[in-house]
Amino acid sequence: MSLTLWPVTGVGEVRPGDDLVSLLLERLDEPLRDGDVVVVTSKVVSKALGLSATTDRDAVVDAETVRLVARRGPTRIVRNRAGLTMAAAGVDASNTASGTVLWLPADPDAAAHDLWRRLRRRAGVEVAVVLSDTAGRAWRRGQTDLAIGSAGLKVVDSLSGTQDTFGNALHVTEPAVADEITGAAELVAGKTSQAPFVIVRGLPRHWVGDHWAHPQHGAASLLRPDDEDLFGLGARDAVEVALGSAAPAGFPAPEPDAYDRVLALAAPEEALVEVTVTERSRFVVAVKDDSSGALLEAGRVCERLRIAARAHRVDVQIDVRTADGPGR
Amino acid sequence: MSLTLWPVTGVGEVRPGDDLVSLLLERLDEPLRDGDVVVVTSKVVSKALGLSATTDRDAVVDAETVRLVARRGPTRIVRNRAGLTMAAAGVDASNTASGTVLWLPADPDAAAHDLWRRLRRRAGVEVAVVLSDTAGRAWRRGQTDLAIGSAGLKVVDSLSGTQDTFGNALHVTEPAVADEITGAAELVAGKTSQAPFVIVRGLPRHWVGDHWAHPQHGAASLLRPDDEDLFGLGARDAVEVALGSAAPAGFPAPEPDAYDRVLALAAPEEALVEVTVTERSRFVVAVKDDSSGALLEAGRVCERLRIAARAHRVDVQIDVRTADGPGR
Repeated sequence: MSLTLWPVTGVGEVRPGDDLVSLLLERLDEPLRDGDVVVVTSKVVSKALGLSATTDRDAVVDAETVRLVARRGPTRIVRNRAGLTMAAAGVDASNTASGTVLWLPADPDAAAHDLWRRLRRRAGVEVAVVLSDTAGRAWRRGQTDLAIGSAGLKVVDSLSGTQDTFGNALHVTEPAVADEITGAAELVAGKTSQAPFVIVRGLPRHWVGDHWAHPQHGAASLLRPDDEDLFGLGARDAVEVALGSAAPAGFPAPEPDAYDRVLALAAPEEALVEVTVTERSRFVVAVKDDSSGALLEAGRVCERLRIAARAHRVDVQIDVRTADGPGR
Repeated sequence: MSLTLWPVTGVGEVRPGDDLVSLLLERLDEPLRDGDVVVVTSKVVSKALGLSATTDRDAVVDAETVRLVARRGPTRIVRNRAGLTMAAAGVDASNTASGTVLWLPADPDAAAHDLWRRLRRRAGVEVAVVLSDTAGRAWRRGQTDLAIGSAGLKVVDSLSGTQDTFGNALHVTEPAVADEITGAAELVAGKTSQAPFVIVRGLPRHWVGDHWAHPQHGAASLLRPDDEDLFGLGARDAVEVALGSAAPAGFPAPEPDAYDRVLALAAPEEALVEVTVTERSRFVVAVKDDSSGALLEAGRVCERLRIAARAHRVDVQIDVRTADGPGR
C-alpha cells in the first residue's frame, strides 16, 4: 500500500461566487477515482463564499470569538463560532488582497458537504472532501494544518475494541486521520504556491464513502467537548477566571471527588480556623477567637474555597462563624 | 510535485540489540534516494535500545515524569524527560508482549542522529530520519503522530521574512513539517500492521541534507519552551498550583503588566480595605476599621494577591495594616 499526494495548480485567484467544483475539475491532470480525498484550503472556501471584507481585523475577530481561551500580550487564542481553538479566531489577512480580512465558515462541515455533494454528482466518483486550515498547537512550536470540515471521510480511525498484534486491547488509540491527511496535504501545497486543492490517493478504501457522509462523521466530531477538555483555558487565564465572580467556562466537568478537593485546597490553619462540612457543598468556617489574625485567616480560607470551587465547577455555600456570633 | 509514502513491511518483531539500519535495508523494495525521509516508530527504537522491562507501569511513568501538567481521574498528562507533553509520559504497553512496558529514549534526537549517521554510511544517500510517536492533543479528539526525534531534516519550514503572493509578510507562519510528515506516515503504517518504517519521497529537496543534521534542527526545537507555553498546566490544575505555596511551574513568563494585573485581580472592596502599591512588588493592605467584616475582606484580598502573583510568576510582598496597628 502506498499513499500519493499532489497539488492541483494553476487555479488562480478565487473570487466570491466562484464554483470551486468547476475550478477543481478543470485543472485536474487526471480523473478522480473512488477512494480519493480532495483537501481544500478553507481560505479558498471563504473566498468563494464571500466571507471577506475590507474592514478592521479586530472587529472581525471579536465577532468570530465565542470565548477567550488564552491571552498573551496582543495575541488572543479563542474558541471561535465553529468550535475551533485558534489564534485570532482563524481570521486571516495573509494570501489575500492587502486590507482584506477573511473569516472561516461558521459550519465548515456543511461547506465540505456541499462541495462533496456537487463533486460527487459532477465527477461520478466516491471521494471525500476535507477543508483544511492552519493552526498552532499547545506545547509545540510551529503550525500544522487541521481538518476543520469534512464529508465522506471516516475522520477518526477508531480502534476501540480491536487488539494489537500481541493481543493487548487498543482501547484509547484513535488516530485523527482527517488531521493527518490535511497535515500531509500541507506538505505538498505549501503556503505560497497557490495550490488550493490537494488530491490524496491510496488511503484505506473503507475510510472513504457515502456512509461516512453523515454529519456525525464531520470534522466537528474531532472537537473535544468543553466538559472533556483539560485545556479549555490557558494556565494563567484559568487562574484569572477562577479569581472572577462569573460562572466559569473552560474548566472540565466536575469529578466525583470535587468537593473533597475543594476542601483540601482550602488548607486552613487549624489553630485559628476550622472548616467543617455540613453537606457535600456546605462549608462552615469557624473562627476560633476574635483576633485579627484569626479573622484574616478566615477570609483567606473562604476565598480559597470559592476559587477552588470555581475551578472544580461546583457550587459551594460558605457560612462564617466568628467567635462572637455569625459573620457575614 | 507529488509526495509518495509507503511502509516497509515484514520486519518482524524487534528485540534489544537489533540493528534497525540492517533491518530496514534488508526489507527495502527499492533503494533509498537522496531527499527521502525515513520515518521510524519510536516503539521499535525503544525495543532495539532495550528501553523496556516487565515491571509496574506506574513506576515507569513516575520515573519518566518531570512535571504533572494535568490530571483527570486516573489519567495523568505530564511533561516527560524528553520535554514531551504526553499522557502517561509516553510510556507504552501496547504492541509489546503482555506485561512489558516500553519507554521513550531520553534524547530522541540523539537516537535519530545515530540512525541517520549509520544509514547514511551504509546506504550512501542523503536521507533524513524522523522518530515518530503517537500523542493526544489539547482541544481535539483523537491522536496524531508527532516527530519526537529528527536528524537531517528541516523540522520547521520557517517562512518568516518571506511574502505571500499578495506581498503580505508571512511573519508567523512556520509549518511544523516534521510533525506533518510523521502524521502522514501514520496513515500508511497504521497501528496494527507491524510497519515500523515508512519511506517518504518527494519533499522539497532543500528540507533534507547534511546541513540540517545539526542538533539545533532536531525535533527538540519543536518543543515550546516553558516560558512561551500558555498551556503548561491544565485549566483546573493551574488553579490548584496557584493555590499552592511552592514556586509555580507551568505558567508562562511574566508580562510587562504583570503587577498591574495582580493588583486588578485582587479587587478589594474599597469601603473596607484599601490596597496601595509602594513599589512594583510591594503591596500594603490597609484595613479601614477593626470590624470582623473588614478583617475577613483583608484576608480575602491578601490571598487573591498571592494567587494572582503565582499565576503571573512574580514575587510580591504584602503588608497588612489593621486599624489598631500592623497585623501579621
